[in-house]
Amino acid sequence: MSSASLSVGFLLYPELTQLDLTAAYEVFARAPNVDVHLIWKTQTLVKSDLGLEIMPNASFEAHPKLDIICVPGGPGQIALMDDQETLDYLRRTTKDTKLITSVCTGSLVLGAAGLLEGYRATSHWSSLDQLSLFGATPVAERVVWDRDRVTGAGVTSGIEFALTVIADTHGREIAEEIQLQIEYDPAPPFSCGSPEGASRELLDKLSVRNREFMLKRRNAAERAAARLQALS
Amino acid sequence: MSSASLSVGFLLYPELTQLDLTAAYEVFARAPNVDVHLIWKTQTLVKSDLGLEIMPNASFEAHPKLDIICVPGGPGQIALMDDQETLDYLRRTTKDTKLITSVCTGSLVLGAAGLLEGYRATSHWSSLDQLSLFGATPVAERVVWDRDRVTGAGVTSGIEFALTVIADTHGREIAEEIQLQIEYDPAPPFSCGSPEGASRELLDKLSVRNREFMLKRRNAAERAAARLQALS
Repeated sequence: MSSASLSVGFLLYPELTQLDLTAAYEVFARAPNVDVHLIWKTQTLVKSDLGLEIMPNASFEAHPKLDIICVPGGPGQIALMDDQETLDYLRRTTKDTKLITSVCTGSLVLGAAGLLEGYRATSHWSSLDQLSLFGATPVAERVVWDRDRVTGAGVTSGIEFALTVIADTHGREIAEEIQLQIEYDPAPPFSCGSPEGASRELLDKLSVRNREFMLKRRNAAERAAARLQALS
Repeated sequence: MSSASLSVGFLLYPELTQLDLTAAYEVFARAPNVDVHLIWKTQTLVKSDLGLEIMPNASFEAHPKLDIICVPGGPGQIALMDDQETLDYLRRTTKDTKLITSVCTGSLVLGAAGLLEGYRATSHWSSLDQLSLFGATPVAERVVWDRDRVTGAGVTSGIEFALTVIADTHGREIAEEIQLQIEYDPAPPFSCGSPEGASRELLDKLSVRNREFMLKRRNAAERAAARLQALS
């Protein structure tokens, strides 16, 4: 892939987890000769699950050819699983992209569009197992690269995801330079950033509190998987 | 500090580095009973240095009393150093905030407002030394907490900064839960996230390329420091 010019598109949809998008955006946009497009159906403000309002700058109908498409995750992902207009758009636009990518539960949307069948992929730790509904092999790593599919795990792994992609498209030196400029020399205050590091109590608490939400997500994934199978 | 209700305001200004704000936003907004305000002079879209457009939702004149004010950094910080309206606003609004905070070069803006004199503080590694122009003691750590001042280092340290603050305001359990939910279990692809880890070549390259920009930043800091001294 040449570093001459790279066109990256993010799906920017209501109730996304904004950091899934904004962390990767920051890395991609710092690389030389990269255009980043924020794509949604309407050209009005899109509100994240936690209220941050971001403006799209491209529509499904009109944007330059993309080299990379990236679907972030977040609660709004559940609605996308039943949203044929968006799934059709993803199937259509990925016909000539070089990389089909996601951060967090964005990979479930790729799965629902039938774009992960036979691929190794990752997702937010809480939903990783749902990838197998779409014929993907779940892998508990921060970045999973399988042929032209690159998926990142939960939220902050968008940083590693984007640095890894830029190391490929622009070379290691550019990626290192960006890592230094965003001072990505992490020192997490606690050791609980993954389920392996978290206490049983914390995992149980989240499991109880999020039960209803997780059921909605699973049901949406199962409906989408059933539709995919009916198509094939 | 009670966890009953916490009001956090970010300064959202043109040509900020959006990830300075969005990473910390994600953490704060996930904590229970937190309201986050994005504050700017005008209620129109604010464009980051790399083109992301975010909508403010509060003005200098009208927002609830803030418990925490946070100034992110980015190239637009240079203009703020000479912007008396913004510096006056910061001096005014911080009179009754509980924590005065920043991420990245936002600390230079706090310095220009006279809010870091006699405090230990941090900033983006490239500009850390400029803090001493404002009577602050530069500290090369990812999060520096001195009495009611909390400053984060470059860009991605906004994650550690916000988790550290939430551990104080809401308790360690809530902060751990957020760290798990944003899957902050970092695995940076390279070891160059700080100048100590970066090669001499990379540091030299950046130093040459950014010379003009860094001179602009230093000149602005020196002008602001001179004005502060004239006032005192």
